[in-house]
Amino acid sequence: MHSPDELKALTEVAIRRFAFWPELDGQTESMRYALEMGGKRVRPVICLATGEACGASVEQVMPAALAVELVHNFSLVHDDLPALDDDEERRGKPSVWAAYGEGTAVLAGDGLLAEAFRLASSYPSPEVARELAEMTLGMIGGQYLDTMVDGADLRSVHRLKTGRLFAASVSLALWATGVEQAEQGPWRAFGDELGLLFQVVDDILDEDGFYVSDGPEGARRLADEAAINAHERLGEISADTSVLAGIVSALAARTA
Amino acid sequence: MHSPDELKALTEVAIRRFAFWPELDGQTESMRYALEMGGKRVRPVICLATGEACGASVEQVMPAALAVELVHNFSLVHDDLPALDDDEERRGKPSVWAAYGEGTAVLAGDGLLAEAFRLASSYPSPEVARELAEMTLGMIGGQYLDTMVDGADLRSVHRLKTGRLFAASVSLALWATGVEQAEQGPWRAFGDELGLLFQVVDDILDEDGFYVSDGPEGARRLADEAAINAHERLGEISADTSVLAGIVSALAARTA
Repeated sequence: MHSPDELKALTEVAIRRFAFWPELDGQTESMRYALEMGGKRVRPVICLATGEACGASVEQVMPAALAVELVHNFSLVHDDLPALDDDEERRGKPSVWAAYGEGTAVLAGDGLLAEAFRLASSYPSPEVARELAEMTLGMIGGQYLDTMVDGADLRSVHRLKTGRLFAASVSLALWATGVEQAEQGPWRAFGDELGLLFQVVDDILDEDGFYVSDGPEGARRLADEAAINAHERLGEISADTSVLAGIVSALAARTA
Repeated sequence: MHSPDELKALTEVAIRRFAFWPELDGQTESMRYALEMGGKRVRPVICLATGEACGASVEQVMPAALAVELVHNFSLVHDDLPALDDDEERRGKPSVWAAYGEGTAVLAGDGLLAEAFRLASSYPSPEVARELAEMTLGMIGGQYLDTMVDGADLRSVHRLKTGRLFAASVSLALWATGVEQAEQGPWRAFGDELGLLFQVVDDILDEDGFYVSDGPEGARRLADEAAINAHERLGEISADTSVLAGIVSALAARTA
């Protein structure tokens, strides 16, 4: 099994080597810009670590891991648009629309989403793509709640907008690895805890969201509880989940 | 086998009954608006007619047919945005962004695309979703050429922007019906002719595109040649393609 740092490095290599669909032509420049802006790659790392815990190779799970990362990047590119969050910067660089124009950014997001489904449908069974579609739809519902509904419940927003794609990081690995549905329960319970853990810590670092609604100490308590829950769920799984346990601890303790 | 009008009516019923993913919540209002604005439903009708010619039932092919129609509508919703074609009207009504705002329109298009992949991945084998992803990527490449590249070759634009989704109307039906890849050749050659036929007639009716580049008579000649080619391709298929032949003739002769 690989360490999280090794899985991140393998993900970066796979992203650099990923061949976009040739007919996208010059449109790929903005898509590559979006994908190579950096980021923690936490979703593909969780996906690959889940796959390895289930006994699969990195190669077998990488298309699913990349698909999740592409959906994540699709959502960032569209969220940053002036009509949604209106962010000119992302990770210290111009966001895609600020660098390439709004029209190209709309198409870049569309292209990333379609590429994600090309990757997800490269498996022999359709469940990887089906699960990705359902999780993406939940995420879009969360983005709708977040940007279009005044006073939407913060927990519902995060459960969908962040949580669905973290859950997908686990569940896509299960389908990609061939874990039967009847055996997926404990894994899925684990995946469901990750989004809240990630988001509460994000809010603490950004001093918004749960940091505002629950106060600094309330938010910290919430993050610690989410980490404990995630560790407990991992404990119910009969596999070597040590790498995933390390990821949970790192997510709870992260400072950036 | 059903007539094109019957297939269109069955498509309308299926669209009205289509249950969006519940987590999309209020976002579905703009998506339903986009889907129910009308339109010829020519792509799902071709998809269903292809399926019936291959011996399948309408029920078996309908998810694929709806998937193609949803991708078509996704592309219209995003194309109409101010940053792309900036169209305030579509089929005599306010376009989605004009009716619901730009942010909701971006999310509506995203949601329609993800729903299309949920439908396409509902089949037992992943080829329907895989083919849809590839065709959608080609279409996005065409939209890029059309809106972002000055002086792009008109035939290349149409081959991708219109052609890929017409080809998908045929090829998704083949996978949904279980036609083996080795037997798909003549069908695919037929599907490749349809986009040009549709687009040239569109240009004649709108007095743009090929109508401008090749003149009224040149464009008419091009449309007639495309129809002849499509009929010839159908003639090479050993199945009852009479309904599809009627659709080709209607596409060549249409006045709206």
